[in-house]
Amino acid sequence: MTGAGRPRLSTKKRPGDTAREEILDASAELFTTRGFTNTSTRVIADAVGLRQASLYHHFATKDDILDALLSGTVDAPLAVAQRIRQSGAEAATQMYALAYFDAGQLGASTWNLGALYLLPELRSERFETFRDHRYTLMGLYAAIASDTVAELGATPRPGTVDLPFRLVETVVNARADLENGRPDALADAAAIAEAALRVLGWSADVSELHDTARALLAKVD
Amino acid sequence: MTGAGRPRLSTKKRPGDTAREEILDASAELFTTRGFTNTSTRVIADAVGLRQASLYHHFATKDDILDALLSGTVDAPLAVAQRIRQSGAEAATQMYALAYFDAGQLGASTWNLGALYLLPELRSERFETFRDHRYTLMGLYAAIASDTVAELGATPRPGTVDLPFRLVETVVNARADLENGRPDALADAAAIAEAALRVLGWSADVSELHDTARALLAKVD
Repeated sequence: MTGAGRPRLSTKKRPGDTAREEILDASAELFTTRGFTNTSTRVIADAVGLRQASLYHHFATKDDILDALLSGTVDAPLAVAQRIRQSGAEAATQMYALAYFDAGQLGASTWNLGALYLLPELRSERFETFRDHRYTLMGLYAAIASDTVAELGATPRPGTVDLPFRLVETVVNARADLENGRPDALADAAAIAEAALRVLGWSADVSELHDTARALLAKVD
Repeated sequence: MTGAGRPRLSTKKRPGDTAREEILDASAELFTTRGFTNTSTRVIADAVGLRQASLYHHFATKDDILDALLSGTVDAPLAVAQRIRQSGAEAATQMYALAYFDAGQLGASTWNLGALYLLPELRSERFETFRDHRYTLMGLYAAIASDTVAELGATPRPGTVDLPFRLVETVVNARADLENGRPDALADAAAIAEAALRVLGWSADVSELHDTARALLAKVD
């Protein structure tokens, strides 16, 4: 009963259709609540009801689990951003749509994985692909923001075109504070998207933009 | 030569006028580059050239060091925010001044300590005072933001008054990405302060506001 082929415990302990998904869900909870360094693969295996050897069948190292989790927070918005960028829509619509989609997915994910973005561990070579994808996404935000600024005829200070991306990532900090008992309501995805536009110089009402952007998302998502 | 009274190594290893300041500087570097969990008090003592017993004379635990470092990032803006709030200046001027001061100090600190705000360890009772101070600061931001919105006659979405505080904290993420080799220029304190105002509905030029806010800061800081 302790061999590598031992069947999984019959009671499924975690949400997820596959062992891989259950490992990711348990790890996401443990990394965000106890910390990455404080979580061993043994603790993860226990949480899922797997032997450590079986866990290693799915992920060779704890870094591989972290990489899969972090990539999951970036790959969907990256794909959407690329399709938005090629849509031919007005830049302001592209900007609102991307911020709205991305703030929405960061706010709706089961675990607040963005809280791990500042881990010193992420500076190692192991996470180069994740970093590349996140920086590609950041670059798409900045390109769309620059086009929006030009479209609006605005002349913001240097660095302002980076702020829509930063604003969207504040969803992570707001969720963390909410989990710590800070009572304020979260700025929702529409509030974040509107703020991203205002930062770039948009001064009119956004209701029509909201509808146009959602229609664009329905096409590309 | 190994007794508790052993003198410090004669070569000063870290910036700081006192052993306490050197401990804080070394810890700030280690916590932000190697991680809090990965840094032992022994490693900190070695970095400063102190025996561990001497280090414990200044800080009883590693948590006490972290608390002192984090409080240092919040206490100055909190004091400034309270004086700004009582200044009788227009709300927009207060908002710009607070965001400008706080973004400036977060950007100028030697180590990027805000990167530690999302540590799961901070949820423990030990850090209640730090959390209280940070949330008091957050509340002052929101109060000034609400007054600014009223002053401007704007009607932003719920949660928008929390975004100036969030925008200022994005300095932390931008610094972290800069340290990771992401080449973009940082949005400076003036860009952040302007963005905070635009999010709340300010649509005019900000050059006069910039000057008024700096004059206010010169009075209260």
